Amino acid sequence: VSTHEVWVDLSASRERRYPVRVGPDALMSLARDLPRWAPAHTYALISDRTVMPRHGEKLAGELRGGGHRVETFTIPSGEEHKTRAEWARLTDAMLARELGRDTAVLALGGGVVGDMAGFAAATFMRGLPVVQLPTTLLAMVDASVGGKTGVDTAAGKNLVGAFHPPRAVVADTRLLDSLPEDQLRSGLAEAIKHGLIADADYLEWTETAFPRIIAGDDEARSALVARSVEIKAGVVSRDEREGGERKILNFGHTVGHAVEAVTGYSMLHGCAVGIGMVVEAEVGERLGVTEPGVTRRIREVLAGAGLPHTLPADVDPERVLAAARSDKKSRQGLVEYALLRRVGSADPGEDGRWSRPVPESLVREALGALGPLGSPGGARIAP
Amino acid sequence: VSTHEVWVDLSASRERRYPVRVGPDALMSLARDLPRWAPAHTYALISDRTVMPRHGEKLAGELRGGGHRVETFTIPSGEEHKTRAEWARLTDAMLARELGRDTAVLALGGGVVGDMAGFAAATFMRGLPVVQLPTTLLAMVDASVGGKTGVDTAAGKNLVGAFHPPRAVVADTRLLDSLPEDQLRSGLAEAIKHGLIADADYLEWTETAFPRIIAGDDEARSALVARSVEIKAGVVSRDEREGGERKILNFGHTVGHAVEAVTGYSMLHGCAVGIGMVVEAEVGERLGVTEPGVTRRIREVLAGAGLPHTLPADVDPERVLAAARSDKKSRQGLVEYALLRRVGSADPGEDGRWSRPVPESLVREALGALGPLGSPGGARIAP
Repeated sequence: VSTHEVWVDLSASRERRYPVRVGPDALMSLARDLPRWAPAHTYALISDRTVMPRHGEKLAGELRGGGHRVETFTIPSGEEHKTRAEWARLTDAMLARELGRDTAVLALGGGVVGDMAGFAAATFMRGLPVVQLPTTLLAMVDASVGGKTGVDTAAGKNLVGAFHPPRAVVADTRLLDSLPEDQLRSGLAEAIKHGLIADADYLEWTETAFPRIIAGDDEARSALVARSVEIKAGVVSRDEREGGERKILNFGHTVGHAVEAVTGYSMLHGCAVGIGMVVEAEVGERLGVTEPGVTRRIREVLAGAGLPHTLPADVDPERVLAAARSDKKSRQGLVEYALLRRVGSADPGEDGRWSRPVPESLVREALGALGPLGSPGGARIAP
Repeated sequence: VSTHEVWVDLSASRERRYPVRVGPDALMSLARDLPRWAPAHTYALISDRTVMPRHGEKLAGELRGGGHRVETFTIPSGEEHKTRAEWARLTDAMLARELGRDTAVLALGGGVVGDMAGFAAATFMRGLPVVQLPTTLLAMVDASVGGKTGVDTAAGKNLVGAFHPPRAVVADTRLLDSLPEDQLRSGLAEAIKHGLIADADYLEWTETAFPRIIAGDDEARSALVARSVEIKAGVVSRDEREGGERKILNFGHTVGHAVEAVTGYSMLHGCAVGIGMVVEAEVGERLGVTEPGVTRRIREVLAGAGLPHTLPADVDPERVLAAARSDKKSRQGLVEYALLRRVGSADPGEDGRWSRPVPESLVREALGALGPLGSPGGARIAP
């Protein structure tokens, strides 16, 4: 199985390029590569209570065997701990071990660890280099690339944070062998999003690849991660700070984040984003921005991946709307949505802003139209 | 009186240039300039309990009169409140007012407000533009320029923060009319530092200008701020992230921060930095890096500015050494010092790193050598 290497080019940024290495056992050469990517006196390996015993201790041993000084830090697992309070505890723990500016952070885990360790790296002594080592499919295809870091507050997700691009990303697909199947499926939602916003052929390929990816085929897993990273890297390279095009990566996320918030983050991110993509495609169709039939197609793909494609009956649409109102993508009081033009293509908008304010009443209608696939609600969308 | 405009050029950074405007009534054109410097739907004017009633409410009124939406936020005054907890409260207050990404921050105050509002701007929704509006001489000549933001922790000053360059800096010297004299003197210490590290003629000029600056001469105040900002801007433009040359701005600050910490931040920053410069010059002389006589010269200049030039009798040198050990400039366990070569010139070091590790025993000796000016301890240094 080949190792893919994709480069993110932040032409307008200080650290201009960083490699994303993808493949089975890609972590095995980390001890050798670290001095080039992020030379440091000490490496702060940050992981959570699930991943540290499973993969972190072994990796720390390998790095020490390779001649590196490693200090390990374990944070609690789960989105509910991605808070300013836990970040303060983590930075205090790093200070207590007397880490200095000549430290680099290794973020080993899923999205929560990547966001939290990345934010600690962004802010510890005004910035340490970070290498992202994603351990979930979701983090591999999405969160580990692009430099977004941050924590949640009572008002919503990721409302406090920083852009802090990693020096390198290593996605070792072998780590997915120990990942629960529902978390694999959650990762597929972001890959589906990449196909929807940028590559119709890739979307079709993912449908054929789902069974192999779930079954543990390293070739299929590596190909999926690499193509998703290529798509994301292309977008991020053109617009790191989300001034325009990068907004298309938020497709499905305004409603998705709101659904997560309403369920108290008990729903997996990918599942919520899947539902969000369906609702936002329906919004696009109603606005005449998105080609008719796209919503139905998204629901079919999600169903094929074993992902939900309608709002659970116990989730109140009005609470979803209320949560969406506090989204940080809101401008001048109206919530902004990135919309599709068709499958494989996002809508740049007439003003090239890649997102547009949408009246809440329209989102309410779209939420209400989501019956089961094939029901009157679902069928109404089809021709 | 003329208005000076200095440009900081961050050639390797995303926001490449920003203006620093200096002069009496320089704030009066803010309403007109803001849309160009930092276009925003809402301006978050952040100040403290001292400055908000004195200057903030008037400024907010002027900006509203100029057609801008302004929300004001008042934080507690004083270094002891520059904490992660207060930063969390501030970001929560900004979220409670439903500020979005289309907000820009105006930081009106001294160094504490600049650091705290700057860090809030750096991290609120992963970064808002900030315009620094310094109200103290210290913040005008130093803290408002250069993009350093952050908060203190129990382990030391500024240990958590971010580099977040402002879009513009406006130093209205008329605001200094209401500043207590001891705070004016505190600001002079950083101006003396700028002369010492970069411009011997400027150092001589400052000595002649001190009485006029204390007496309220706008021409002298503007000239002092403008020249200090020019020196600092030159250094920061060449090395934003303190990889090398920028370290010379830390001259006097390793010992200075330690003295501040030991006095529980009851000593003004400039006073502590003055003492720190004396100690670090003495260290340099003992190492043979700094020309003999420089320490004595620094003590004379500080005395002329009415600033302390020796460690207060009630401060234990051993506690200063202990506090210096936790400085974030430490690398590989040894505390690093930026040293002078002579008056007007810093020492790049043999390796061009602009700072060097110094054995603690030598710093202990330097601290012990500081008797009163003219005493055996002081005289020993002179030829």
